[in-house]
Amino acid sequence: MDYYSSQINKLIEEFSRLPGIGPKSAGRLAFHLIHMPKEQVKELADSMVEAREKVRYCKCCHTLTDQEVCPICSSSDRDHRTIMVVESTRDLAAYEKIGKYEGVYHVLHGAISPMLGIGPGDIKLKELIRRLEGDVEEVIIATNSSLEGETTAMYISKLIKPTGIKVSRIASGVPVGGDLEYIDEVTLLRALEGRTEL
Amino acid sequence: MDYYSSQINKLIEEFSRLPGIGPKSAGRLAFHLIHMPKEQVKELADSMVEAREKVRYCKCCHTLTDQEVCPICSSSDRDHRTIMVVESTRDLAAYEKIGKYEGVYHVLHGAISPMLGIGPGDIKLKELIRRLEGDVEEVIIATNSSLEGETTAMYISKLIKPTGIKVSRIASGVPVGGDLEYIDEVTLLRALEGRTEL
Repeated sequence: MDYYSSQINKLIEEFSRLPGIGPKSAGRLAFHLIHMPKEQVKELADSMVEAREKVRYCKCCHTLTDQEVCPICSSSDRDHRTIMVVESTRDLAAYEKIGKYEGVYHVLHGAISPMLGIGPGDIKLKELIRRLEGDVEEVIIATNSSLEGETTAMYISKLIKPTGIKVSRIASGVPVGGDLEYIDEVTLLRALEGRTEL
Repeated sequence: MDYYSSQINKLIEEFSRLPGIGPKSAGRLAFHLIHMPKEQVKELADSMVEAREKVRYCKCCHTLTDQEVCPICSSSDRDHRTIMVVESTRDLAAYEKIGKYEGVYHVLHGAISPMLGIGPGDIKLKELIRRLEGDVEEVIIATNSSLEGETTAMYISKLIKPTGIKVSRIASGVPVGGDLEYIDEVTLLRALEGRTEL
């Protein structure tokens, strides 16, 4: 039985395909939309289509941008000899928000995951290796601290080490403000192994 | 600093204005969209605009529909002398999903809330009263069991009682499968007050 109009049903169905949106949230979103001013709905719809059409990968670091070379890669204030390797543009943004990192980035768009069938050829790894032919001093691997992120970090470090370029990995351990009682064993072990002298 | 392209920022901002979507979810949605096939994004955008443009209120019960009179109101299989009053089309759908209610509905599109400045004139109450001039036997008030829903129920029942039409309120009590231990005091009290003889 069609409780709502077919348009609302279609909208709910399409919303519920988006990540993190279940059927209930999709319904709530759809009904919110129906009650929004028409121009606002049009604007949101246009933003979606425009973003999808204009946004592309930076030719250099492969982050998402609307320019051929992203603002970070084209900035002369940044240290182009230090490359931080991240899994996604959102991870890049996480570091950019701090405003303390002065090097450039390389966005892999994923991580090696044998379980999901994602191999080294499926992420922007070739592109990273090609960048190393230039004047690079250090590669900081900032992939996630997950199984996939660690696998990718290991893989990249093995690839780069023979070239003589310095390879480092961001530290893993107890998050600042974290309560030891609630932290998983692997993290606790990592924190112990990675302890620094005071 | 603009970490992403301006299009992505705009999209994140617009998404985060939607209900239940914080800045983090908005970011996740925006990036998901960037990686979706162009046609799918276009389709979703079109569905939004179309739903907003075509969906309107049923002339009779004021639910959201794409027809002048909704399928329920125009069905001859339904008992048009029993009207269930609900706050929203989603509440209507909740009852329709069970498939056991055979009467028709009236959607108020809100509830009386002095705190939010929503008075009886701001919901579809006049429209309900007008419907009672026809052949109506019972009005079942199925507004939410919140302060606003209860206020609205009281208000409606006081309006209708003088007309001699039967007015009822859906039962409130312990939900089926609910564990008494975790149920709030007001509900427990209601369940006690509304007990039925076995």
